[in-house]
Amino acid sequence: MSNRIGHSLNITSFGESHGNMVGVVIDGLPAAFPIDLDYIQSELNRRRPGQSDITSARNEGDKFTIVSGVFNGLSTGAPICIQIPNESQISKDYEHLKDVYRPGHADQVYDEKYGHRDYLGGGRSSARITAAWVAAGAIFKSYLLHNSGITIQAVVSSVASLSVQNVFEMDWLHAEHNPVRCPDPNTAKDIQELIKQTSSEGDSLGGIISCRVSNCQSGLGEPVFDKLNADIAKAIFSINAVKGIEFGAGFESSRHKGSENNDAPNSSMNNDGGITAGISNGKDILFNTAFKPVSSIAKEQMAMNTNGEIVPLQIKGRHDPCVLPRAVPIVEAMTALVLCDHLLLNLKYKK
Amino acid sequence: MSNRIGHSLNITSFGESHGNMVGVVIDGLPAAFPIDLDYIQSELNRRRPGQSDITSARNEGDKFTIVSGVFNGLSTGAPICIQIPNESQISKDYEHLKDVYRPGHADQVYDEKYGHRDYLGGGRSSARITAAWVAAGAIFKSYLLHNSGITIQAVVSSVASLSVQNVFEMDWLHAEHNPVRCPDPNTAKDIQELIKQTSSEGDSLGGIISCRVSNCQSGLGEPVFDKLNADIAKAIFSINAVKGIEFGAGFESSRHKGSENNDAPNSSMNNDGGITAGISNGKDILFNTAFKPVSSIAKEQMAMNTNGEIVPLQIKGRHDPCVLPRAVPIVEAMTALVLCDHLLLNLKYKK
Amino acid sequence: MSNRIGHSLNITSFGESHGNMVGVVIDGLPAAFPIDLDYIQSELNRRRPGQSDITSARNEGDKFTIVSGVFNGLSTGAPICIQIPNESQISKDYEHLKDVYRPGHADQVYDEKYGHRDYLGGGRSSARITAAWVAAGAIFKSYLLHNSGITIQAVVSSVASLSVQNVFEMDWLHAEHNPVRCPDPNTAKDIQELIKQTSSEGDSLGGIISCRVSNCQSGLGEPVFDKLNADIAKAIFSINAVKGIEFGAGFESSRHKGSENNDAPNSSMNNDGGITAGISNGKDILFNTAFKPVSSIAKEQMAMNTNGEIVPLQIKGRHDPCVLPRAVPIVEAMTALVLCDHLLLNLKYKK
Amino acid sequence: MSNRIGHSLNITSFGESHGNMVGVVIDGLPAAFPIDLDYIQSELNRRRPGQSDITSARNEGDKFTIVSGVFNGLSTGAPICIQIPNESQISKDYEHLKDVYRPGHADQVYDEKYGHRDYLGGGRSSARITAAWVAAGAIFKSYLLHNSGITIQAVVSSVASLSVQNVFEMDWLHAEHNPVRCPDPNTAKDIQELIKQTSSEGDSLGGIISCRVSNCQSGLGEPVFDKLNADIAKAIFSINAVKGIEFGAGFESSRHKGSENNDAPNSSMNNDGGITAGISNGKDILFNTAFKPVSSIAKEQMAMNTNGEIVPLQIKGRHDPCVLPRAVPIVEAMTALVLCDHLLLNLKYKK
Repeated sequence: MSNRIGHSLNITSFGESHGNMVGVVIDGLPAAFPIDLDYIQSELNRRRPGQSDITSARNEGDKFTIVSGVFNGLSTGAPICIQIPNESQISKDYEHLKDVYRPGHADQVYDEKYGHRDYLGGGRSSARITAAWVAAGAIFKSYLLHNSGITIQAVVSSVASLSVQNVFEMDWLHAEHNPVRCPDPNTAKDIQELIKQTSSEGDSLGGIISCRVSNCQSGLGEPVFDKLNADIAKAIFSINAVKGIEFGAGFESSRHKGSENNDAPNSSMNNDGGITAGISNGKDILFNTAFKPVSSIAKEQMAMNTNGEIVPLQIKGRHDPCVLPRAVPIVEAMTALVLCDHLLLNLKYKK
Repeated sequence: MSNRIGHSLNITSFGESHGNMVGVVIDGLPAAFPIDLDYIQSELNRRRPGQSDITSARNEGDKFTIVSGVFNGLSTGAPICIQIPNESQISKDYEHLKDVYRPGHADQVYDEKYGHRDYLGGGRSSARITAAWVAAGAIFKSYLLHNSGITIQAVVSSVASLSVQNVFEMDWLHAEHNPVRCPDPNTAKDIQELIKQTSSEGDSLGGIISCRVSNCQSGLGEPVFDKLNADIAKAIFSINAVKGIEFGAGFESSRHKGSENNDAPNSSMNNDGGITAGISNGKDILFNTAFKPVSSIAKEQMAMNTNGEIVPLQIKGRHDPCVLPRAVPIVEAMTALVLCDHLLLNLKYKK
Repeated sequence: MSNRIGHSLNITSFGESHGNMVGVVIDGLPAAFPIDLDYIQSELNRRRPGQSDITSARNEGDKFTIVSGVFNGLSTGAPICIQIPNESQISKDYEHLKDVYRPGHADQVYDEKYGHRDYLGGGRSSARITAAWVAAGAIFKSYLLHNSGITIQAVVSSVASLSVQNVFEMDWLHAEHNPVRCPDPNTAKDIQELIKQTSSEGDSLGGIISCRVSNCQSGLGEPVFDKLNADIAKAIFSINAVKGIEFGAGFESSRHKGSENNDAPNSSMNNDGGITAGISNGKDILFNTAFKPVSSIAKEQMAMNTNGEIVPLQIKGRHDPCVLPRAVPIVEAMTALVLCDHLLLNLKYKK
Repeated sequence: MSNRIGHSLNITSFGESHGNMVGVVIDGLPAAFPIDLDYIQSELNRRRPGQSDITSARNEGDKFTIVSGVFNGLSTGAPICIQIPNESQISKDYEHLKDVYRPGHADQVYDEKYGHRDYLGGGRSSARITAAWVAAGAIFKSYLLHNSGITIQAVVSSVASLSVQNVFEMDWLHAEHNPVRCPDPNTAKDIQELIKQTSSEGDSLGGIISCRVSNCQSGLGEPVFDKLNADIAKAIFSINAVKGIEFGAGFESSRHKGSENNDAPNSSMNNDGGITAGISNGKDILFNTAFKPVSSIAKEQMAMNTNGEIVPLQIKGRHDPCVLPRAVPIVEAMTALVLCDHLLLNLKYKK
């Protein structure tokens, strides 16, 4: 496996769904930066299971501990290890999955690759491990804000076929006021109903998260192979269930002519999504991320077992019928890591 | 800048559009592998400008030289440096661009980031540098075929609104028989006409390239941060003008339920696009890449100059009205790099 | 800071002397390898303070916990996080060092570099953090033995001017039978006396650790920049107080002629110390590491304070008068990391 | 193989002794830095064979070309590829080495590791490839001087048993005025005679190069694994024939007490060699490097052939009887790379 991401600033992730804890080691954060524990907790709360009636019932307090790298409230430059205990795991829920591979899940490929698999709660492949990423992301978001005024916000812009139109032209102030994290209250309400309905059917839903980085200076990104969009894409594809990403006009831009698509200078056009030639251009960075529906469904489906037989499977355990509301802070965290890393990489070009 | 990509196997890219040459250093290729010079040339010819009436008129022979790492026709394990001279550059075409920033291009962000810019032919930001990537990619494709039977093919599946339906369910045998590299001959003809028409209007077109990796073993990919899809995405976003990528059912999967989207075992379903949890699952790897229309258009447009004034601009030089046909081998090359790298990384898990 | 070392296999180190714990994340270990907890503990015990009358009186049990990456006693391929709590720190011993820089210590350079320093027990610069390296090293030594039959042993070959002659030609079986870890019992006794004497004077001693890697296959090492000796040297210089390293005949070889120094084929000569051109040659790998005397001495010395004044300083706290006996397992651990990493890197050249 | 070294700033090396050229790609150099071609050439001339009567007779002009990354005399931030053609190779000299392994050389281990070897002039293992490192080093030395006032000088302080006493306390102004590059003219004369004498006997000599980095600010180095000394050690061990390195008082410090060895504040003492706890402390950085005698000797010696037989061998070709005078600029170049890299890495800690 490879569990580090980032260049000048990076995180090393560790832990499994049903082990003692999940954690992260942040390396490369400059010294003497104030670490805001309350803000970290508030970000963890945004990702926490059990936060509303449309998320997993696994009840994790997600109370974190920082065991290194912070002294008297400030970073020292040393690696910051953040740990989040696993407290609500119910391992017996997973005994029935020991010998059968859940469709769409890591089970089978992990077995084929590693030969020895921790099947409890998905083990290393569980999205549980992203809790620690969100904790780290809180520090990065805080660093970006205080050092460059950069802010990052993600929202749910569609679930199944319920979709907010022109989401990037809309005010996102109220997205956090509904459990879906959708900027449009009406669509939010519809999505919430759909999730409940789908959950009761034992099924699951996918959707799209849109992300905006505001107030970003131009110049971030290291062509030709550590372009800002390339690094964001890589970081975002680290998140479970992500199947696509597009910047600015994205796939839609493939249907337009150059004369229509080129962002006119001094205009509000932003088809490039704030990144040109792999470098931030000073406009808002905009991208959409597609999530497939959660693979773990309560509904019976056919699955392969470790003997290669096809057997009926009903997955137990506590799963989100739709991960998108809880994935919002994860998208923000991974974006913050990349931005923060590139902010530091770019120092060498400063006058 | 950062000009290396890959882990165990990697390439370092160098060169500019109007310098002496573009080149690449391949590091980490196992020893004693036969280097097929003719195949490298044939791949370069697929990317070469001037190959048909719908590509740039820049006439580069793209005759390459290998200056290291190969002895008596076999790799030695040492770094392989491949060089491709620039022969047809017309630098006077670019004098008018010295003080004006082409919309949608690297010009302005490079100036803002680096403060000193090679404006000839786009300098380092030119897609000219991908010629060397394609040469390297030929070696990687050859390595994959001989060591694992893996093949990689990309095709043009849409240009503007002309699109091949269900492209992954179609036979791609004839895609190389038309200058568009579209698997459907009728759509190819329509696209070719559209490109010519658009070119005559001084405009440009975007589109979508679809890629398929066939006969890929399960087990490639290094979660949680060097997942196979994450590394492919990063490599593909290194290519100029790419604005989006999606694997398997991609953005469409976000609209479906889990019970519909999960690939049933022992079926031909492939909504996951051959990668589950960041690891190849043994099915064909399928992904789509969105290209924006070429930014360089002959048509007059407004542009910002180095004084911050908005001025009319007519871009001279020889540009493709649509890069997709020539980008096909570039997509294949970057995909081959990632696959080859992960094939080597995976050796540690072999019994 | 930069707290990861290793390529295909690597460790990320975290923790400080007086924080909750010190720890390490191992990434890249192949799956299904049995983790021997008793062996890890026995290696920790070799490094533990308070193990004899010539080591620091800090009394740490060094009871470790593995919180990830191991399932049913076997590695899963996932990152292995090992944690060792700090239990015996006495932070008040360090209050007098808050505003004064101990000569030869990290205090001043850390302040100058980072601007905010954890002064308790040396914080991040303390050798306390190497406890976790030793725990990781136990796994690596075990892996090397079971997969390649490679063994690694280090011994103390000199302290001050007390030195074992021709240490590499001697039997090292009994080195662990004396608290000095010196293969010659008589020299061991003399060194033990000297350490006690010096300790009673409030002073400290340096010395040399010799290391031998036995049964190492030829072919490990990645020229030209990740040569086996280069990587060992880098890893060894990560250990506090190391001031020099030499392989085989080392500095002495600089005084000989080529006709004398070249190792004759099929002979027992090993002036190259088992590494030729950066690659293991099949003979034992031999190197010496020079440690300066411990900087922390009880004896009064002059020191600079944070105001730039020179003031008398008597260092309190519990310090080893000579670190060499406890540094032996650290040298072995870092060597084991490098060997294990290169064993995995070399897989790509296997037939 | 692994042919890149450096973090934020790095070089990728390519080429073989008897190929078309040797070269290097520099990545990560900030933009708008003036590239002084004459200085690069003057540094190459210091390493050039045939420069005096005590060096190899291979007559290489070592005229370099920069093919990328420089525009109008200034760096652009893009990768700088420097190429040096091989012009004087005499490949027939090496036919007799096709099937026999020179003792102390890469021949046998390369065959065992890679299975396919370029035996001409040592191929990839030849010190010929360091010519390109020296060219890169010239740019780094220039960058250090102009941006931080840092200077780097290396000298030959001993050959065989002829040694300059207290070399770091001596004036090095005249070291470049004799072909040995020894700061003491009398010792230089003796060494020159010894080299000639030894050469006439078909034998070779080793020795020690001492290096001093002057005017270096405190704060460079990234503990705990990219310490400044660790990175210098790794870079220096990349140089052929290096068998040992020591900083400051080095191995000698292992014989002293802490009260003697600790550098007193505000004194000229420098037992730590300018690096404390892996970070530059503001004093001159001082280190010694031990080179074994050149393995290639004209004198008949016994060697193993590819059939495993022991046969007499007389090595033809043009070899230095003592590499130290020509290795001086190589030591400086690798040191400059590390310093320059760490200067850039340290930017993140700047106020």
